[in-house]
Amino acid sequence: MEQEMMKVKKWFSENKNQGIRLLQKLVQEGSVRGNESKAQAIIIEKCRELGLELDMWEIGEEKLYNHPAFCSDRKDFSGNPNVVGVLRGTGGGKSLILNGHIDVVPEGDKEDWNNSPFSGYIEDGKLYGRGSTDMKGGSTSLLLAIESLIASGIQLKGDVIFQSVIEEESGGAGTLATVLRGYKADGAIIPEPTNMKLFPKQQGSMWFRITVKGKSAHGGTRYEGVNAIEKSMLVIQALQELEKMRNEKITDPLYEHIPIPIPINIGKISSGEWPSSVPDLCIIEGRMGVAPNEALKDAEKEMENCLRLLGESNAWFKEHPAKVEWFGAKWLPGDLESDHPLMTTISESYQTIKGVTPKIEASPWGTDGGILSNVGDTPVVVFGPGVTEVAHDANEYIEVDKVFECAEILSLAMMKWCGVSETK
Amino acid sequence: MEQEMMKVKKWFSENKNQGIRLLQKLVQEGSVRGNESKAQAIIIEKCRELGLELDMWEIGEEKLYNHPAFCSDRKDFSGNPNVVGVLRGTGGGKSLILNGHIDVVPEGDKEDWNNSPFSGYIEDGKLYGRGSTDMKGGSTSLLLAIESLIASGIQLKGDVIFQSVIEEESGGAGTLATVLRGYKADGAIIPEPTNMKLFPKQQGSMWFRITVKGKSAHGGTRYEGVNAIEKSMLVIQALQELEKMRNEKITDPLYEHIPIPIPINIGKISSGEWPSSVPDLCIIEGRMGVAPNEALKDAEKEMENCLRLLGESNAWFKEHPAKVEWFGAKWLPGDLESDHPLMTTISESYQTIKGVTPKIEASPWGTDGGILSNVGDTPVVVFGPGVTEVAHDANEYIEVDKVFECAEILSLAMMKWCGVSETK
Repeated sequence: MEQEMMKVKKWFSENKNQGIRLLQKLVQEGSVRGNESKAQAIIIEKCRELGLELDMWEIGEEKLYNHPAFCSDRKDFSGNPNVVGVLRGTGGGKSLILNGHIDVVPEGDKEDWNNSPFSGYIEDGKLYGRGSTDMKGGSTSLLLAIESLIASGIQLKGDVIFQSVIEEESGGAGTLATVLRGYKADGAIIPEPTNMKLFPKQQGSMWFRITVKGKSAHGGTRYEGVNAIEKSMLVIQALQELEKMRNEKITDPLYEHIPIPIPINIGKISSGEWPSSVPDLCIIEGRMGVAPNEALKDAEKEMENCLRLLGESNAWFKEHPAKVEWFGAKWLPGDLESDHPLMTTISESYQTIKGVTPKIEASPWGTDGGILSNVGDTPVVVFGPGVTEVAHDANEYIEVDKVFECAEILSLAMMKWCGVSETK
Repeated sequence: MEQEMMKVKKWFSENKNQGIRLLQKLVQEGSVRGNESKAQAIIIEKCRELGLELDMWEIGEEKLYNHPAFCSDRKDFSGNPNVVGVLRGTGGGKSLILNGHIDVVPEGDKEDWNNSPFSGYIEDGKLYGRGSTDMKGGSTSLLLAIESLIASGIQLKGDVIFQSVIEEESGGAGTLATVLRGYKADGAIIPEPTNMKLFPKQQGSMWFRITVKGKSAHGGTRYEGVNAIEKSMLVIQALQELEKMRNEKITDPLYEHIPIPIPINIGKISSGEWPSSVPDLCIIEGRMGVAPNEALKDAEKEMENCLRLLGESNAWFKEHPAKVEWFGAKWLPGDLESDHPLMTTISESYQTIKGVTPKIEASPWGTDGGILSNVGDTPVVVFGPGVTEVAHDANEYIEVDKVFECAEILSLAMMKWCGVSETK
């Protein structure tokens, strides 16, 4: 495969600029939820240029809504399609799904950004912008890897199924729709921002909404009421205790370097309508991490139990229990064995290109991999060029060189996994 | 004055139903901020029927905006007028302002209400609905008191200036506009819900907004970020300590029966855009009580100092100080001597009608009285029929009998204060 790799490497060395330009254009189309279409249009254009078999559709069919793994609070998916492009193999090889999501989380407080959140600005080898690391950099690696093979005249035996899906950040309805449309494979790679580590296991997660009651009153006689915000502070403290307790149980060595393997994140709080009134309702929303080998239902029960216990120690909560709903997003955990052939393929490719063995860890966040593996029966490895720490943060960036490095490793892994056709 | 009082009492005994109907109609027009016009239309109709000299205007003149006591975040006052109706005296008597606000606070969580929040439903002598106690019941007492004198053919020497103002709940721009339009008097009564107690002193208050910074990150690696909600919990704890410290300094015996004379109310909290992200910004809004003899500026300084101290004990706040703004509403405190002639007049009238002396306390909340006294040089007593405890709460109600009892006391007080003309 050395000859092929030389061609591929040559192609990469000659195509840096167009690769960077592709990533920049993708970042500049800020594809927050409900606004994915313009970034998808760039992906579609690229797939057409590469001659992939294109499949684009607006998700939302009845089968999707009725599937037990479906969870979304989005009312309307129209105008923002899922995109799949298939590089058909000559036959006889293993198939591979290459999955990236096009949706990005909101930009947060604009004042925390040094440049506009969707600038695509490049400095010191870093390309900045919401979505650069999570995960348009990874999707760019996928497209460049495919292009490098096509441009080098290398034909694969197995099919490569490139996917650019919506809704990853909100529960994976986009990837679920690909599975229900029939897209399964012998393996899948998702280039989420792993800092070039291999993640065979992924933390699952789900969103929760906790409703805390108070009793309203005029702020000048606040002692006549019960402040739902103050009561919520007790709920948050209980969740902090629960997180501690749950993480003490995690002993998997893949989590050795991760401070909190399955965090409980308090992501939103909202209470009160009027500064002079005691608020009678507080809504807390967040994300609960689920261990790779844990059932979502079991994790749900632990939180429900935690809130029930609050009622036993606190008279207010006994009369007015804090209630949890599991709404919106759910990511199934993933749990691939570390010596699975797909792991070996990627590890060997990594070693060939980089000269060292890759780090293997467990993913600190859920990905669409849970759906591909649990619903689609497709073994998944998460491996990508982004910087984990800056995902969802202000001044999110990706190191441009890593995008190309990852793409080269993926090119080699595709050849190893799908097989190179002798016919050409 | 016994003969006049007999006529007045007779009128009240014959006019219960129309009085209740007036209050019910006022409550049913839910005059939350920006929607005061329909309730004002009922007031205007009543003033016309009584033959008062009507003055209606949309506030918002330059003089108002430029006044140091003006504070409002409302952009547009058009369509929701202030209303003043003057019952002109024959001359030679003291003048009296009767001030009520037409605006009501939002209804809160509708599910906490047994009936619709603006039902005006009556059961067991209580009339329910947002604004019934705060303070359409009081305004109804004012109108009934005026009507009882007119209907009984009693003419006063001094002018009675009835006012139905907007914006009391948001900082008093409505009452400030009446003062700037020239309405001042020898005394003023504001029938806010005092449970029929007399309040010569009123707590001042002002709204604050505190901005707390965090550092965003993906919720799955929440340890890479700093949660603005968790940091806000420390700010709220500091405010609780500040409240305790400030109230320990209050020794005025008029506050003897009030658990927290000058409370700090946390009225709103808002943080986060996404359950799976660590929020980087949290906004807390609330109301700070100000002692009758305290300057607003001094109270502001105490809170600013409290937040500064947080920075001395906490590394995060040292780098990212919690910042306070004083926005929207401010109510000046009021501080009338307990033996002021207006106090005596109302106390004596109370004793005549009820046979016992009234309770005298300090108001646990700010009223427009601070503006009338501080800006308008008009001595103010707050005295009204509503139930303090249910103001701003779900299932707010007023005891209908108290509305009439208060009205009778006010009728007598008006005769005593303004003097009864012999000419008729």
